[in-house]
Amino acid sequence: MTSIFLYDTTLRDGAQREDISLSVEDKLTIAHRLAEFGMHYIECGWPGSNPKDADFFARANRMHLPARLAAFGRTRHANATCAADANLRALIDAGTPAVTLVGKTWDYHVSHVLSTTPEENLAMIGDSVAWMKGRGREVIYDAEHFYDGFVANPEYAMATLRAAAEAGADWLVLCETNGGKLPWEMEAITREVASRLPGARLGVHCHNDSGCAVANSLAGVRSGAAMVQGTVNGYGERVGNADLVTILANLQLKMGHPVLAADRLHELTSLSRFVAEVVNLQHDAHQPYTGHSAFAHKGGIHVAAILKSPDTYQHIDPDLVGNQMRSVTSELSGRGNIQLQARRLGLDVDNEQAQRVLAQIKHLEHEGFTFEAAEASVELMFHRLDPDYRQPFELLDYFVITERRHGRGLLAEATVKVKVGEVVKFTAAEGNGPVNALATALQEALVDVYPVLRAVRLTDYKVRILSGAAGTAANTRVLIDFQGGLETWTTVGANANIIDASWRALSDSMEYALIRLGSQESAP
Amino acid sequence: MTSIFLYDTTLRDGAQREDISLSVEDKLTIAHRLAEFGMHYIECGWPGSNPKDADFFARANRMHLPARLAAFGRTRHANATCAADANLRALIDAGTPAVTLVGKTWDYHVSHVLSTTPEENLAMIGDSVAWMKGRGREVIYDAEHFYDGFVANPEYAMATLRAAAEAGADWLVLCETNGGKLPWEMEAITREVASRLPGARLGVHCHNDSGCAVANSLAGVRSGAAMVQGTVNGYGERVGNADLVTILANLQLKMGHPVLAADRLHELTSLSRFVAEVVNLQHDAHQPYTGHSAFAHKGGIHVAAILKSPDTYQHIDPDLVGNQMRSVTSELSGRGNIQLQARRLGLDVDNEQAQRVLAQIKHLEHEGFTFEAAEASVELMFHRLDPDYRQPFELLDYFVITERRHGRGLLAEATVKVKVGEVVKFTAAEGNGPVNALATALQEALVDVYPVLRAVRLTDYKVRILSGAAGTAANTRVLIDFQGGLETWTTVGANANIIDASWRALSDSMEYALIRLGSQESAP
Repeated sequence: MTSIFLYDTTLRDGAQREDISLSVEDKLTIAHRLAEFGMHYIECGWPGSNPKDADFFARANRMHLPARLAAFGRTRHANATCAADANLRALIDAGTPAVTLVGKTWDYHVSHVLSTTPEENLAMIGDSVAWMKGRGREVIYDAEHFYDGFVANPEYAMATLRAAAEAGADWLVLCETNGGKLPWEMEAITREVASRLPGARLGVHCHNDSGCAVANSLAGVRSGAAMVQGTVNGYGERVGNADLVTILANLQLKMGHPVLAADRLHELTSLSRFVAEVVNLQHDAHQPYTGHSAFAHKGGIHVAAILKSPDTYQHIDPDLVGNQMRSVTSELSGRGNIQLQARRLGLDVDNEQAQRVLAQIKHLEHEGFTFEAAEASVELMFHRLDPDYRQPFELLDYFVITERRHGRGLLAEATVKVKVGEVVKFTAAEGNGPVNALATALQEALVDVYPVLRAVRLTDYKVRILSGAAGTAANTRVLIDFQGGLETWTTVGANANIIDASWRALSDSMEYALIRLGSQESAP
Repeated sequence: MTSIFLYDTTLRDGAQREDISLSVEDKLTIAHRLAEFGMHYIECGWPGSNPKDADFFARANRMHLPARLAAFGRTRHANATCAADANLRALIDAGTPAVTLVGKTWDYHVSHVLSTTPEENLAMIGDSVAWMKGRGREVIYDAEHFYDGFVANPEYAMATLRAAAEAGADWLVLCETNGGKLPWEMEAITREVASRLPGARLGVHCHNDSGCAVANSLAGVRSGAAMVQGTVNGYGERVGNADLVTILANLQLKMGHPVLAADRLHELTSLSRFVAEVVNLQHDAHQPYTGHSAFAHKGGIHVAAILKSPDTYQHIDPDLVGNQMRSVTSELSGRGNIQLQARRLGLDVDNEQAQRVLAQIKHLEHEGFTFEAAEASVELMFHRLDPDYRQPFELLDYFVITERRHGRGLLAEATVKVKVGEVVKFTAAEGNGPVNALATALQEALVDVYPVLRAVRLTDYKVRILSGAAGTAANTRVLIDFQGGLETWTTVGANANIIDASWRALSDSMEYALIRLGSQESAP
């Protein structure tokens, strides 16, 4: 059976989704997780399209991730040389082992968008691929609009692929750019290309405009493609890209392709939800395989049958992808999950402890907390189970004001009163916002006793309102990322009041920092 | 070409989704709209499963809708008569012209769930269909788990269909109940059934657990099915049912089936969003064909090409389904994007005005604003260019506190001072969080003068810290969604201070509401 390679473009094509805007830190976090998960290729961006990219590529290359990083760009300009092309030079400067070049397939686009001749377009493809190969890169050639182009003019579409192949492209990726094709059309055309280009390594890149991106990608694999391009959760422009999460599960569990080791597949739900948290989108509860509701049974006859035999109304065992069966009336235990997570943190947790943490998580999730991306908050729960564990400080009061006065501008101030051991610390701070003022006042209150906290700083802050119906009166969830030394961690807080939710995440983070960095307590 | 019949089960199978709970009024509203739209069959519920159903059926029958209503139930109990079966009698009492009976296909289910013999199950199917036909009903036989059952034991699966057909069933619907099949499996099995039962009218009923429900339904039609069952927007248990909205668009626009008159298809986007509204779920912006983002273009090269020829990056003309092309406004935009957006808003903007708005957007995006999802904020900029435009109110001061005191709990309070015309309004409000308190105080200050604002409410709130490096001291971006009447809109604010960023988005939204809903100013 052909080996299938997964090519993730969440960081480039996925970020074209209109409500996604990624910082360099976000991109590094996602790239790290994708590589750890086992993604074969990670497309990281279009160098030169914005100034943040140079910084990203420099830092990503230094991470030495166990995945091939790819930089994305287009073929050279018409009637110009590769050497003079700033875009191609930026691709080399990105320093990635792989480079993905997109070129035109459809003669209509060549004349209407590029405004050049069919012959020049072929030269642009061939020259650009050859130039990149000459610089030691693995070259993935993305044939834009391949399927529409093939329908319009199959001979010209094939000529563009041949131009890339003859110049040494390692992969020819057939892109269903407009997303409107149906699976049997995909399959017939891909099969035709495979038969006309024996030996070529083909890939497919699909969009979901007809609601068939998953099926279209699988049809591509059935008819000869060995690379599937897509994004985590199908994020992308318009309706989205093909969802690599669903595709991977189908390839491995339904079609028998051993794409990744089975224990990696077990991380699929966690990966899918993690990426949603980082891009700050609600994870789709109804996503195939990984959604919170994907194995939730509400119908009376279903639940009764499921209790007799779980396979009566489930297409797979949810444990295979790290998800859980739920019935809407009775939540089923995920103690195994908790123990797995504890083990991953290097902690030894028995059944009874796991049960207590699970009960606490379920209670807090009901209040709006989420722990998918807030492992520090979970780790704190484990530590607090230890009878020898001593809470390093205790909140007495806080008070935060924000005001804007005509002619006097904006101010934010906070006071914090905490008890550290037997000492009460009362501090005040101003900030350029209420959470900043609160964080500064808290840090001030603690650094005398715990000087290690001086090095801790907040690096990211995300907020989501949970119930779409009740507005600002609804529950607010805050995720805060911190950094101290080389460590980074995330904590979560939830409350109808955003300041109080932030307080919870802030104080958890300070407590976590003391565990992680060592409390190095000085005499109070 | 075979006529294709659409069978909607939003009111029965769709309502199995865990966050949907419909009142009788909701069900009547949806049934009315579905029938008006042109849906051929509307499955309305399972009579007897809850007391509201009797009321619903009585009222629905009196509406004389231009669609065939169907009541849903199962075949008779094992070793009993139809006449003694309360479920079958309730189906007759529902008084619908069509009755849908679900029966078991899979021998595993017959023994493990029904706990009866294969022979008795065949008798249950045949008896129930015949009994219903004898009472003048059109009978749709839903063969549960057909595909899994066929794979496990094709001869038995076929025998169940024959039992229904020989008893006079008008339709044999092959159900892909567990949702795990892939399109080519669907196609091969459906084709096989069609060849073994020449002349039978076949239907398909798919679920989306493998992410292929749309493709699977279309594969069913390709191989002989003339009825497609599904739900509006794919609502349903677990991952959901097949999305009838996407299926209809594909059947009609891609596969050439004249399922409905073309002018009906033009209502598709409106139908899809209407049903979302009634079931109280946010419409999926990324839904194929009907999503708010389904024809939204963000990438610079895409937008440039789209302006030259709209078909370069769109699979269909969005007008065919009543949707609209949009260009997403961001710093990647050019003047063309701005003009496209103004045109869509029905505003006439010349080059110089477009240039001014673009410059303003670029300046504000540099400060951390984002306009991709905040079209209301962009529209306000256009209005403010108009020399006749009068700002409806002016902020003087606001003041917000949040405090938590040992033993006294949490409180949030705000005061707002605004100038409306020559009148200064000074209001105070408390809230369960600072933004809620501020929003309430602002609304209080304005409703005396602008009573239309009483109906405006905040529906979603998103916050993002922009620079991953500078923490709470960094810039904070707030996006707020509002609803007033049938309109929804989004505004943006950015500031290092989250309260001030929220203030900006809140006050823009109030101003936008006055444009959108009409200011209906009462004498101040």
